Amino acid sequence: MSLFEFQTAGKMVLGAHAAEQCAPYVNRLGDVRSALIVSQPSMQRSGFVDTLTQALAKEGIHSAMYCGVSPEPTERQLTDIYEQAVAGADYDVMIGVGGGSVLDATKLLAVMATSGMGVRDMLGTGLVRQKGIPTVLIPTTSGTGSEVTPNAIVTLPEEELKLAVVSPYLYPQLVLLDPVLTLTLPQPITAATGMDAFTHSLESYISNKGNPLSDMFALESIRLIAASLEEAYGNGTSLPARERMLLGSMYGGMALSCSGTAAVHALAYPLGGKFHITHGVANSMLLSHVMEFNFDAIVDRLSDVAAAMKLPEAQAGSAQRAAEAVIGKIRSWTADLHIPQNLREYGVREDDIEVLSVAAAKVTRLLNNNPKQVGMDDIRALYRKLLA
Amino acid sequence: MSLFEFQTAGKMVLGAHAAEQCAPYVNRLGDVRSALIVSQPSMQRSGFVDTLTQALAKEGIHSAMYCGVSPEPTERQLTDIYEQAVAGADYDVMIGVGGGSVLDATKLLAVMATSGMGVRDMLGTGLVRQKGIPTVLIPTTSGTGSEVTPNAIVTLPEEELKLAVVSPYLYPQLVLLDPVLTLTLPQPITAATGMDAFTHSLESYISNKGNPLSDMFALESIRLIAASLEEAYGNGTSLPARERMLLGSMYGGMALSCSGTAAVHALAYPLGGKFHITHGVANSMLLSHVMEFNFDAIVDRLSDVAAAMKLPEAQAGSAQRAAEAVIGKIRSWTADLHIPQNLREYGVREDDIEVLSVAAAKVTRLLNNNPKQVGMDDIRALYRKLLA
Ligand SMILES: NC(=O)c1ccc[n+]([C@@H]2O[C@H](COP(=O)([O-])OP(=O)(O)OC[C@H]3O[C@@H](n4cnc5c(N)ncnc54)[C@H](O)[C@@H]3O)[C@@H](O)[C@H]2O)c1
Ligand SMILES: NC(=O)c1ccc[n+]([C@@H]2O[C@H](COP(=O)([O-])OP(=O)(O)OC[C@H]3O[C@@H](n4cnc5c(N)ncnc54)[C@H](O)[C@@H]3O)[C@@H](O)[C@H]2O)c1
Ligand SMILES: [Fe+2]
Ligand SMILES: [Fe+2]
Repeated sequence: MSLFEFQTAGKMVLGAHAAEQCAPYVNRLGDVRSALIVSQPSMQRSGFVDTLTQALAKEGIHSAMYCGVSPEPTERQLTDIYEQAVAGADYDVMIGVGGGSVLDATKLLAVMATSGMGVRDMLGTGLVRQKGIPTVLIPTTSGTGSEVTPNAIVTLPEEELKLAVVSPYLYPQLVLLDPVLTLTLPQPITAATGMDAFTHSLESYISNKGNPLSDMFALESIRLIAASLEEAYGNGTSLPARERMLLGSMYGGMALSCSGTAAVHALAYPLGGKFHITHGVANSMLLSHVMEFNFDAIVDRLSDVAAAMKLPEAQAGSAQRAAEAVIGKIRSWTADLHIPQNLREYGVREDDIEVLSVAAAKVTRLLNNNPKQVGMDDIRALYRKLLA
Repeated sequence: MSLFEFQTAGKMVLGAHAAEQCAPYVNRLGDVRSALIVSQPSMQRSGFVDTLTQALAKEGIHSAMYCGVSPEPTERQLTDIYEQAVAGADYDVMIGVGGGSVLDATKLLAVMATSGMGVRDMLGTGLVRQKGIPTVLIPTTSGTGSEVTPNAIVTLPEEELKLAVVSPYLYPQLVLLDPVLTLTLPQPITAATGMDAFTHSLESYISNKGNPLSDMFALESIRLIAASLEEAYGNGTSLPARERMLLGSMYGGMALSCSGTAAVHALAYPLGGKFHITHGVANSMLLSHVMEFNFDAIVDRLSDVAAAMKLPEAQAGSAQRAAEAVIGKIRSWTADLHIPQNLREYGVREDDIEVLSVAAAKVTRLLNNNPKQVGMDDIRALYRKLLA
């Protein structure tokens, strides 16, 4: 085997109501007196940010809050938040409570605070110069797995792009995984973020950089998500389904951290950058088409996936059939969960394909992981399928 | 679900020949100028310690070495090593290359160096006062999983005991998992350490503290070990078998770190402390008997294990049969791998059972994890089975 690497969050605490019990764990990170809570409006409305503030106060930790992170934040927004909430202050820890957008923002603000670097200078792999303020991440979507990845995604609307900051300094010191916080997720977000998590695991499993460790996380993630996505969507207050989704999403993050996503993510980013299609929706649109494109190279892998998904076709003994059933199931999920499947709904026209394709072709960091080489014509053809 | 926690090594690098490529990774730990290599005679004889010294020198890291760690080190030996090799010196990192004995010694020396504490003062849970010198651990047995656990085991011959130091400060900063180093393991050590790893996973899977994360690691570990223990024993130079064993052993360490071992380990320690029966052999002797003792409480869990082990009985649809087959397989392993099964071979007599039982009953940290309560009479009866 060639060498592979694995790294993850410093510590994880998992279980229902873990988040409201986080204060003693935060305290044990070191000499913590002051915290900045970074969050989104839904967590302020639900009262969780207040609960957290009070719990921290009981442990002698004073906290300030910034609860206005927008979905898929832009460079400009991140810089504004930094100036409003971070510059000049001296927090011992940053606590991010929210979806991937909030977690990514928290990870970036923490390294901006110590390095003095701007967002733009960190875009790319390995450019963050030094470690940040310690971070505590509490995901509220079952989704990005950002709580255990070295990545943070930045939207650049001027360039019509989304780009990643990738650095080991982005791993958090502490993660709280609390399914109770995800009970309030609206159906469309459960669907899109759940498909994002599934995409992380499926792409990691077929990635050129796949290895025994990422395979384990990916298959376990696929098992959990396949067993609970429909229930989490249809019966959002089911704590067992929410719990399995949250674990499955964390495993997806672990899988992608030691393997890597591939063409689905590469083609999804331009859809987010230029047409503001949310990340999970963009992935869902592309997933079945990219798997079909890769098909002959990944029949055996997809057949393992079919078994993990407990698809009846996995029993029949034909790898080809089992693999096809995975793609069929992805298609029926996107229909049943009412995830948009046509780019025209977002105003994309035939004319836009060239710009999208040029942008996607630049995401070589991810395209290199794809089991089949993806040329410009392939990219154009894939986007075109979404205009049918 | 109730809360559970997970923590692991700072970073892992895995693959054939990973160990000899470790120097740049060591360098990236920080400003590393000097290292103490802690090892055992076999790694000096094989030339690996020299290879490592040269590789470190190329990265500008000067290293000293101590290659005389004895198997299952005593408090006295650890104190001597500390005085000879650590006290007064000022290493930036400690690199342990060896079996569990060496890894445990390295973990302890690193915290002794910063805290000034003696071994005895650290025995117990959570008593280590501060973090140690950064450690790099390179296991050469597939075995203890010590490279990813917060534990270090100390032999106290005067008290005829083995006791654990348990502290989050014992987690290493870097782990190199290189199956090539395990190709030289002699058959009896392959057998005993392999059974130790299997015991970690099986006990974690049936432990009262089991949870979804430890279950995943435990079952994957069981899968890998069941698929390769016999080959690693019979055909020791098989790199694929050695690789699976090493991964399986690391997963066993991850499983026990977030769940915990139980009665097998509790009863094994006195056999090591008083009769110097090596850890893996002591576990192997006890494993089938303790599983029989627990049987009616763990039929379903054992039936999952049978499936992970791909035992034919797992297909038949009777959980009871499948569970019995796991115990049968453990028995046939110990016979086929020539692991001693009778305490008389070690000079244990009927008279010794009382002292052993009193000692085992004190290991409440582990007995509390056992799915069935284990009273003094149960312990006596279990030891007595090994004198039959
Ligand atoms: N860092 C990584 O490894 C990684 C991986 C994949 C995606 N991403 C990035 O993460 C971002 C997407 O994150 P996301 O998919 O989690 O969505 P999101 O964070 O943008 O959240 C989507 C919406 O759901 C709301 N929301 C979140 N949790 C809620 C809850 N529990 N109840 C009610 N409303 C809730 C948010 O406020 C927001 O309006 C994108 O920028 C994407 O590129 C990062
Ligand atoms: N820290 C933990 O989590 C943990 C868990 C279980 C056991 N332990 C402890 O670990 C110790 C046992 O460790 P172990 O079972 O790995 O055995 P070990 O380290 O005692 O090694 C056994 C023998 O094998 C030799 N050896 C090791 N690797 C070799 C190789 N590659 N080639 C040739 N010879 C080699 C050693 O020099 C030694 O003589 C015990 O003290 C036990 O209690 C610790
Ligand atoms: Fe994603
Ligand atoms: Fe053990």
